[in-house]
Formats: sequence, C-alpha cells, structure tokens
Amino acid sequence: MMKKPDTDKLTVGICGASGYTGMELLRILALHPRVEVTAATSEKSAGKKVHELFPFLSSYAGLAFEPMDREKLLDKADLFFLALPHGASQEAVHYFFSKGKKVIDLSADYRIRDPKTYAAWYGLLHARQSTLKKSVYGLPEIYRDKIKKAALIANPGCYPTSAVLGMLPAVRNRLVNLASIVIDSKSGTSGAGRKADLGLAFCEVNEGFKAYGLVTHRHTPEIEQEISNLAGKKVVVNFTPHLLPVDRGILTTIYAKLRKKMNTKGVLALYNRAYAKEPFVRVLAEESLPNIKHVRGTNTCEIGVRVNDRTGTLIIVSAIDNLVKGASGQAIQNMNLMMGFDETEGLCQLALYP
Amino acid sequence: MMKKPDTDKLTVGICGASGYTGMELLRILALHPRVEVTAATSEKSAGKKVHELFPFLSSYAGLAFEPMDREKLLDKADLFFLALPHGASQEAVHYFFSKGKKVIDLSADYRIRDPKTYAAWYGLLHARQSTLKKSVYGLPEIYRDKIKKAALIANPGCYPTSAVLGMLPAVRNRLVNLASIVIDSKSGTSGAGRKADLGLAFCEVNEGFKAYGLVTHRHTPEIEQEISNLAGKKVVVNFTPHLLPVDRGILTTIYAKLRKKMNTKGVLALYNRAYAKEPFVRVLAEESLPNIKHVRGTNTCEIGVRVNDRTGTLIIVSAIDNLVKGASGQAIQNMNLMMGFDETEGLCQLALYP
Amino acid sequence: MMKKPDTDKLTVGICGASGYTGMELLRILALHPRVEVTAATSEKSAGKKVHELFPFLSSYAGLAFEPMDREKLLDKADLFFLALPHGASQEAVHYFFSKGKKVIDLSADYRIRDPKTYAAWYGLLHARQSTLKKSVYGLPEIYRDKIKKAALIANPGCYPTSAVLGMLPAVRNRLVNLASIVIDSKSGTSGAGRKADLGLAFCEVNEGFKAYGLVTHRHTPEIEQEISNLAGKKVVVNFTPHLLPVDRGILTTIYAKLRKKMNTKGVLALYNRAYAKEPFVRVLAEESLPNIKHVRGTNTCEIGVRVNDRTGTLIIVSAIDNLVKGASGQAIQNMNLMMGFDETEGLCQLALYP
Amino acid sequence: MMKKPDTDKLTVGICGASGYTGMELLRILALHPRVEVTAATSEKSAGKKVHELFPFLSSYAGLAFEPMDREKLLDKADLFFLALPHGASQEAVHYFFSKGKKVIDLSADYRIRDPKTYAAWYGLLHARQSTLKKSVYGLPEIYRDKIKKAALIANPGCYPTSAVLGMLPAVRNRLVNLASIVIDSKSGTSGAGRKADLGLAFCEVNEGFKAYGLVTHRHTPEIEQEISNLAGKKVVVNFTPHLLPVDRGILTTIYAKLRKKMNTKGVLALYNRAYAKEPFVRVLAEESLPNIKHVRGTNTCEIGVRVNDRTGTLIIVSAIDNLVKGASGQAIQNMNLMMGFDETEGLCQLALYP
Repeated sequence: MMKKPDTDKLTVGICGASGYTGMELLRILALHPRVEVTAATSEKSAGKKVHELFPFLSSYAGLAFEPMDREKLLDKADLFFLALPHGASQEAVHYFFSKGKKVIDLSADYRIRDPKTYAAWYGLLHARQSTLKKSVYGLPEIYRDKIKKAALIANPGCYPTSAVLGMLPAVRNRLVNLASIVIDSKSGTSGAGRKADLGLAFCEVNEGFKAYGLVTHRHTPEIEQEISNLAGKKVVVNFTPHLLPVDRGILTTIYAKLRKKMNTKGVLALYNRAYAKEPFVRVLAEESLPNIKHVRGTNTCEIGVRVNDRTGTLIIVSAIDNLVKGASGQAIQNMNLMMGFDETEGLCQLALYP
Repeated sequence: MMKKPDTDKLTVGICGASGYTGMELLRILALHPRVEVTAATSEKSAGKKVHELFPFLSSYAGLAFEPMDREKLLDKADLFFLALPHGASQEAVHYFFSKGKKVIDLSADYRIRDPKTYAAWYGLLHARQSTLKKSVYGLPEIYRDKIKKAALIANPGCYPTSAVLGMLPAVRNRLVNLASIVIDSKSGTSGAGRKADLGLAFCEVNEGFKAYGLVTHRHTPEIEQEISNLAGKKVVVNFTPHLLPVDRGILTTIYAKLRKKMNTKGVLALYNRAYAKEPFVRVLAEESLPNIKHVRGTNTCEIGVRVNDRTGTLIIVSAIDNLVKGASGQAIQNMNLMMGFDETEGLCQLALYP
Repeated sequence: MMKKPDTDKLTVGICGASGYTGMELLRILALHPRVEVTAATSEKSAGKKVHELFPFLSSYAGLAFEPMDREKLLDKADLFFLALPHGASQEAVHYFFSKGKKVIDLSADYRIRDPKTYAAWYGLLHARQSTLKKSVYGLPEIYRDKIKKAALIANPGCYPTSAVLGMLPAVRNRLVNLASIVIDSKSGTSGAGRKADLGLAFCEVNEGFKAYGLVTHRHTPEIEQEISNLAGKKVVVNFTPHLLPVDRGILTTIYAKLRKKMNTKGVLALYNRAYAKEPFVRVLAEESLPNIKHVRGTNTCEIGVRVNDRTGTLIIVSAIDNLVKGASGQAIQNMNLMMGFDETEGLCQLALYP
Repeated sequence: MMKKPDTDKLTVGICGASGYTGMELLRILALHPRVEVTAATSEKSAGKKVHELFPFLSSYAGLAFEPMDREKLLDKADLFFLALPHGASQEAVHYFFSKGKKVIDLSADYRIRDPKTYAAWYGLLHARQSTLKKSVYGLPEIYRDKIKKAALIANPGCYPTSAVLGMLPAVRNRLVNLASIVIDSKSGTSGAGRKADLGLAFCEVNEGFKAYGLVTHRHTPEIEQEISNLAGKKVVVNFTPHLLPVDRGILTTIYAKLRKKMNTKGVLALYNRAYAKEPFVRVLAEESLPNIKHVRGTNTCEIGVRVNDRTGTLIIVSAIDNLVKGASGQAIQNMNLMMGFDETEGLCQLALYP
C-alpha cells in the first residue's frame, strides 16, 4: 500500500520513468526535501515496484510503475516531468498543461520555436502550436526570469546545453565571427538511452570511438536557435557528435574566429563576469581544463577557454553530465525556479570522483 | 580567509585528505548537515586550497591543505579521521586519542587485536598496545553498541567489510563448515590508492583482470579475526583478491560447505532476519544477484545467496563500494554512531546508475 | 565476382559467421596460409559482402554472407565450422558429417557424452546420438591423438577450457581432494555473443561486475565431465561465472584442498612437466600471475599456481582469450591437427598489449 | 645463450624497447618473415630477458634487454629503430647513421625540417643539422619514393599521421580554404607512453575525457609543415588533442570551409582516387564512418568524409591505431620500403574486434 503523500510537499509525476533520464529524476528527487514522487509510468514495467526493477533505487519502496494513462495520472501530481520519445510528448504535454498542471518536458517537442524547423529536422508536424507558443526554453542561465513564471518548460537537449553555455559570453560580448563556429561534441553512451540495441552493446562501444550523425543530428537546429537568439541574427553552425566509451558526460570543444585580437586572460575575465552569480557554471582558471569526470553526477557545467594567437581563434571547452545538467538535473533546477524553491535545492551533490 | 566554524556543528579534521579515501570523506561530509570540516592535511599539496587541487570539491572554498603538524591540528577539530599509511597511524592515533579527541582510523593499525598477528602480517611492531586495547572495530552490524560508546574506532578494511558482512548470518547461525571457506574478492582500482605507479596506469589495468597478493594479502588476518569472533573459535580462510578495471566496487564471492542440507529460501530467511533492521545492508530476493554498479557511491552492502544442492555448498555474493561502505562512508557511519547522530545522516545517496 | 579457390588450400565454410566467434574465425583464417574461406552464412546479413558488414575484415573482398542452405553449402568446402546456437547444431553437424565433410562444431551439442546429462542441462533431447558417439572433444592438451584422426570435433566451451586446463595436472597427479573443488570464473562480455540485449548494453555492463547463472550455468556438466574423465571417477564442482566489463578474456580462479602437504615449487614442477611440450599453455614462474591482458588475441592459456599452507589449499589461476583459445582459435588448432598441418599454423600472434 | 642470427634475415636493433612503441615493434616484428630482432635496449630493465618483463612476448626467448651502449650495439644490427625521448634521439640517430646503418627514428627530433621551428616548440637546439637534412619524413602516402632510397627516416607523429592522411586529398585538390582548418583529435592513453604518472592512473583516466595541451601541443608544427608542403604555401591550423579512456586509437575530426560548392559524393570520388592504390588507407562509403575499434592492432587508416551544405564546410574523420599506423607499424612499413621488401610484409593483421 502506498503511503499518503506528505501534504507539505510538491507532488510530482514522472512519465517515462524507466529510461535513463527517468531513473535520474528518481535518483535526484529521492533526496529533494520539498518533493514527493507520487507517480511513475513505464509501459514495459507497469505493475512492478520501482525497487523491484531497480533495486538501487531503494528508497522508493511504495512506488510502482503504472501505464501512461493520463486521466488516471492527472490527480496524482501537481507537476509532471515528461521523459517520453520525441513526437509522443506533443499530446501528453498539451494534455497536462491544458488541465492546469505544471509541465517540464524533457523531449524535443517544445524546444524548437519554429514549427517549420521542427518539421524539417524531426519529420513531424507540430499539432499543438498554440501550446508550443507558451513553452519556455529551460536554460536558466538565459531564461531564468521567464522560467520562474512559466507553467511549461521545454527542457534543453544535452548537446545544446553544453554548446550554448560554452558560447554564451562569447556571443553576447560579440567576440567571434558567427560564420566560423565549429562545435565538436563527445558524449557518454547513456545519452543514447536505455534500450536493447546492437550498436550500443558493450563490445561494440567499449574501446571504440566514432563520430555519428554528421551534418544531420537533430540538436543542430536547437543549438542554432539559441546562438541566433543570443546573437540577434540567424547563425548556422557545424555540429558533430561523437560517442565516448563512458557512461556519462559530454565534453564540447568549440572553435570560432575572434573578431579582434584578444588574449586568454581577457576572454576569461568576460566569462567570469558572465557566470559570476551562476550556481551551476564553473569557469576554470587559465591553468585548468574541464574533464567530464569532474562533473559526474552533478548539475555543474565546467568551462575553460584559450585563445590561439597564431590562428586568431577562440577555443572553448565545456563539460557537463549529460543526465544531470544535460537532462534531469536541469529539469529539477527548472522545477525549483518554477516553484519558488531555492534554485540549488536537491542539486548540491559533489562529483563522484573517481 | 577561512570562515568561522559554525558552533552548532561537529568540527572534523582529516589527516591524509588528498588520497582517494580522504577525497571521499570530503565529498560525503560536504553535504552532512551536522559536520564542518575544519582541517585537512596533505604533505604534497600543503598550502593549496582544496578546490585548487580538486576543482570538483567546489564547496570547500575556504579550506586549504596543511602539513600534518599534530600540535597545530589539535585545537582545530573535535574528531579526527586518519587516512594515513599503515604504520604512520600508530603514533598519530595515539596522540589525538590521548589528548581526548575522538578518532576514526582508516588504516589497519588498530584493527588487529593481537599485536603478534599484526607484526607477522604487517612487518611492524605495535608501539601503542595500550591504546590498541581501547579501539573498537568499526563494523556497526557487529559492534554498534560498542561503537556508540567508543572514542577510538578502527575502521574496517574494504575486503573484510565485504567478506564479513557476507558471512555474518551464515556463521552466527552455524550453517557452514568453517574449515571450507573460500573468499574470492574482486576490487575496483581505487582500492589501491591515489598514486603514480606503473602497475596502476590506465593502459596496464584497462581491459585486464588478474589475481594479486595470493595467500599473502594483509586483509586475511582481519577477515579471520572477525569470522573467528563470530564463530567463537579460530578460523582460517582462503582469501584471494583480484583487480577489476573499474573505479569503484568490491564484489566478493564466498563458498562454504553447508553443515546440513538447506535450500536457498531457508538461508535467505536467515539472512533477511539477521539484516532486517540494518539500514545499509540489502539482502536480495532469490531471483536477483548483487552488482557493484548497484551500490556505486552508496554506503549499501548488497547480498545474494544460493545453495548448490549438488555439492552441498552455500554460495554468498556481496557487493559494496570500496570507498564508501568499504572506507569513508563506513567511517562516517561510525562517526554518526559515536556522536549520537542519526546513523544514516549524510549517507542516503542512491547509486549513481548508470 | 568471387575468385576461384586456390586448389592447394583447404576450403572452409563457416556457418553462423556474423557472431563474435564467426567473426573471430574470419579474422584468424584470413592470415592462415593453408586455408581459404569459401562460404560464410548469416541469416540476417545474407546477400551482404563480409566487408560491407565488417569493414575491418577488409581482406574478404570477394566473400558474401549467404543463408544457411546446407545443400548449397555442401560442395563449397571440405571442412565446416559451425558457430550456430545450441540445439540448431544437432542436425547441421549430422548433415555435413554424414556427407563426408570434416566438421568442427562450436556449439555445445556434441560436447556432452551422456545424452541424459545434455537433456537435463540444455532442456533438449539429442536426436543424433549415433553421430554424437563419433564426436571427439576438441581439447588438444587431452585428446590430441584422437583429434588427429577425427572427422567431427566438439569444440570445448570457453569456461571449460579455462577450468580444465587449470585443473589437468592437479587431477592427473592426484594432488587434490576432488570433493572440494571451487571454480570461480570471470569472463569478458564477448562471451555472451553479438546481440541486442539490454543486459549487455554498454551502460549496464560498464563499471559493473556481477555473478550470474549461479548453480545453473550449462558449462558445469561439461567441466565435470572432463574433470571426471581425468580423475577416473565422477566429480561434481562448484562453478560460478561472473561478467567482466572488458571485451575479451576469462580468468578462472580454482581452489581445491591438497591431499598431502606440498609447496608451490613442487606443484609448479608438476605443472611445468605436464605442459612442457604444449605450444599454447604458458605456466608462469612463482613470482608471476596470469592476466587476461597477457593473452588478448592469442591462443595461449596462462597458468599460475600457489599453495596456501595455512589452509592446505591449492590455488590455480588460468587466463585465456574466450574468443581464441576459448572458441575460434582452439577450433583452428583442432583443424590444424585434423588436417595434418602444423598445430600452431596461423595461431602465432602475440598479445595485443596494451 | 642467444642463438646465431639467421643470415638471410635483416638484423634489427630497437633502442628504447620497453616503452609502448618499443613493445609494439617487438610484437609486430615477431611475425615478420624477413626480420630478426638482435638487440633491444632498456636502461631500467637491462639484464632481464624480454619475456621475463613481458611474458606475453613469449617468442623472444633468447633476447635480453641491454643498456643503450651504442658502440656495443653497432655490430649487432643493420637497421635500428630508435624509440627514445625527444632530444635524446639527436645524437643516437646521428651516430648510427654516420656509421652507415639504416635508422628509423620514432622521436620528433628529425621530423621538423626547420631547426628554428624545432627549437621554438621543443625548447632544444638541433645539434645535428647536417644529418637532419638527410632525413626523410616517413609518411609513405606522400614520400614513398624518397623513403625507398633513404637511410634515415623520421617516423611521423601519431596525431600528424591521422591529420595529414585526412587532409591530403582535400589540400592537393585545393578543395578548402587553408585559413579555416580545425583539427580536433582524440587519442587513446597509450599515446602518453608507459610510465608511472598520477595523471595517467586508471582511476584518473577511466570514465573521464578532457582536452589537453590546447594551443601548445608539439605536433602542431609537424602537422603544419606537412599541410604547408601539400598546399605549396604556409598554413597554420587549430589543433586540439583530447585524452580518450581507451588503450589505443586516434580519431581526428577535421573541419575546413570549401572553396567552392561540392557534395559528399564528389569529395569521396577524389578521396577514393587519391588512395586507390594505398594498401593502408581505407576510404569508407558514404553510409559509413570511421571507428578506432575498426583499426585496433592494424596499420590501416580509415577515412570518412561529409559535406555540410548549410555551412559550406568539409568534414573529414580519420581513425588510426596510434601504436601501429601512428608509430611502430608505420615504422615497419618504412623499413619494408627501405629494404625493398613487400610494403605490407608483416602488417596484414586484421583488427582485433571486439
């Protein structure tokens, strides 16, 4: 029997709770002092207790997976995290939102402002464009004030989070030639999700490294949308993802030509100023460089910069945990902002190192 | 400038804070609501801020490493964790203990009750045998009441923790032939410590697997001491450690002949009863088996058992995180008990999975 | 267009060539001077060129996968390797064998001499028991003379190869109490085959380690059969496999009580004598211990031994590459013996280290 | 006692044979039919048999490491591979070369044509500039004819091999804007050498990923030298290396603006033409992309290309094994060319996959 929800706590439902981002929401929310998870859906594991499927999520003794029946879910929670496949989120988000619930969508369905761009890259029409207009892109470092007032958050993609946080001060300060941007990203394998797939089998990934989705990866228009917003004009970028033989982490290396001569110290000063008050961005001193291992299990984005004088190029390196700042941690950061909680509540864990 | 210690909090010093167990103490204590770390020693990194050496320990902005000068340290903290090499701990423990401080020693120096056994396996005489007599072996599942009253804790070794927790119900319930015990352990590489050593280099360890220290590993007498105490008579065991190409985790597979015919269900019932109230032991149902990945970053010991009818053998598998339940987490569990805090305070994190 | 087979070479067909053992046969045979692979089957990849599916098998420009149509295959080769699932091999082996072809079967179907034991562990009746009687268990270190004259080889399982080679001198020399044998094996993930399976996904296996198949693993009766044959009486053993987060390699740690007092040197002398002429067994000196990384990509079995005086136990550690000596390499060794080639032909590669 | 060299074989000495590139020379040369290794130096391991230090190099039963005494070495071999640290090679190369021996130097000392550039990046004066002038840069895909006639080869660096082979057809065919080149490389850890170094410890590298040596890596001028030679004018590039948690492999992702509109097919046609006769370059079809796992243990360079129409950028991905085509394999390829052997002799192994 499930215990009665604690009335002082925010009740939260997670749709798509048996994938890696769903698991990560459960992991982080277990220690969040102001939240109680009251519903978790999974089609394949419906009926199973959470801790039967995932014994390591041992604190969820009372919670069982249920099928995604939105009518039944509606009264179980005040806020819903949706970790559903792209496309499937369109209707689900619209439903909960139209019923007055707060919604944080971890899919791409409500990220792309322009339905034509969405259709072109995702091969789907957007059937809920009026709801789309009400969504806020959940990157607090840009949209914090809007997020605080929003009822519907489109939680950013993992690669876009790493790329946009890396670029933000450079673009805002007009440091670089916008036609020259190269974004070379490397992601841990959990970014591909929890599924049976030969290409994701241990023996195929381990001791390997490859680029994939060249020129066609769907995070490209999302990155371009946000860089364009920052720049105030349309920007296109080269974006190449790679698959790292690690569980977690994205490291993104960005190259852009400087518009005028600057040195590393000067750029660092601008980055430090831009992120001085950000609780989850750590700009490294000149002698240090980011490592995905430094941010494992945390909501932190580590950033390092260097100027290459010989080529007149600014090089920016950013590191995040793709499942935390790149997905579930940022979603909880957004929840904290929407609910008026302390922004860092439940997100203060230090990196699991080594 | 270091901020003034919070007067409501327990002040804690960590001697040997730049190794992996020291780092792990810092990581866990950062979120412990009743503790403030007020001193951290490191000879090599003395003078550096903690977050300069380890940027991912970002919440220690005010703390700098200092050399191990015990007189200077004495007034800085009420409780000291000592994560020093074997041998070096003898005097340091004695000093802080004799000055009235609470001490939790993570070395082996105060674990072995019999100074002759210590001398035989460690090649060192014990110069502080009167202090040795006052130490309590810090395995709460056996010695909880003593720990609560103790001022000096000998924190158990990582392999002994995994082996003794695995064996405890079987030995207490006299299930097995004590002359037949085989303990086959596999440990992640962090167990070997943080050091420059060719044998621990990535390219030597990765994609490799080997046994080491056959017949001679120093955790053998510690395991035997505790099994013997549980059995009420002298027991010798076969113990073989192996090196796993992972960061963290010990999985121990134990074999012992059953004294009488039993089935898996019957043994499981005894294990469940023995550990029913233990916050950090998880006995798995018959269909499940432990995995080090299920306990990564947690203070949990996962245990599974099976009876082999054909050979009349009980097989027990236990999994811990060697840096948490196998070292720093257990040390903090001991601290909680000594100080009258809730035993699980600061130790509730779920596994970082994947 | 496929080039005409070289008439001086043995023509070889591989049934089930797109799994890991099939790929490994292709990899090794590519450099075998006396063999030409003239057929390779795969149901899923039928019609594709081998190098289209596996670009790294670049020397197979002319060879395409074909479906398993035994009548069409019959005339294409003089010898067939069968790397088919258990059960499926029964008929296929019988067909090629009855048509006068030489057959090396990598499945378990022809390994277990006793059809009742096969039925009990594999849940299948053996429909070709007269053919079963003609098969020879392909462990050259025991059955070399029979293999030379055989037309049908049951290629040993990976775990049994590691366990039996480890035990052979101890059992033949009657060193150990046969009722006390514990075999604790750890295998790389390629042993589970090439398939889409959530349990084998990178993020599930990486940084993890677990036991599996406790008490029920199907290699148990195969190990017992061969140990019993060596001992001259029925032996049962404890056998526990574990899953290592590496691509290749099995390390097996074996424990057995000594029947009389011996030291490590004495046991080593017997092991050295037993394997003195074996081209693929390397007994290590007392100061060394096996590592799967030392045998990666090779047909070598590395063995180390130690006596534990305190417990009167002999400890044996063996290491093989599960895909080479544990499968495809040993199959080629058997082929060499059957065909009168030099036993080591095509099998002399040194370990890929690091 | 060492056996007498086979008089029909080329005698070869390896200076610096206990590092990873030295070990790899030993591994590959063990199966080279026309070579006998007659000397191997190591200061630390002098006096030890090769197979005592590296049991997996089992075929070197007669060979012992000796100190680097060049007079003693001189008569032992006709050709010397030098795998010594940068700087140390200057004199050693000059000595053997001036005594009429053939020399293949795996250090950087004879790669940079311009002594001022060498001094600026390596912080060393070049004391043997007349010998430097006689060295040939050992990239057969560019300098095959010169290599055939050379007595002194400067074997290319691992990153430059991957970058220059990736760029060659694009630069020769004047496809790209030479001021826009970004070279983002990711290397396995063996590239850092075999040494005790905390930064290379398993627990520091595993599950991590980072950039290093930004803007300052010494392979930069070597890449620029060769791209400039191909272009016929001075080129500077952005080059960023990263450390991958794998043993072997370099994947390099290259970005350059196209000078005129082209599609992927058109570029691929030029790449296929450029490398049609190259035994060790594999240009992949449009649907495939390189993976370091496809080239593990081989001398092959895998190359894939894509045009990004939206940004007008050519993206090239190349993959090599840093220890084979990036070091020891290419050195042996150069030896084959110098000696008039078949260029692929001893280098035909297929990838160890998985």
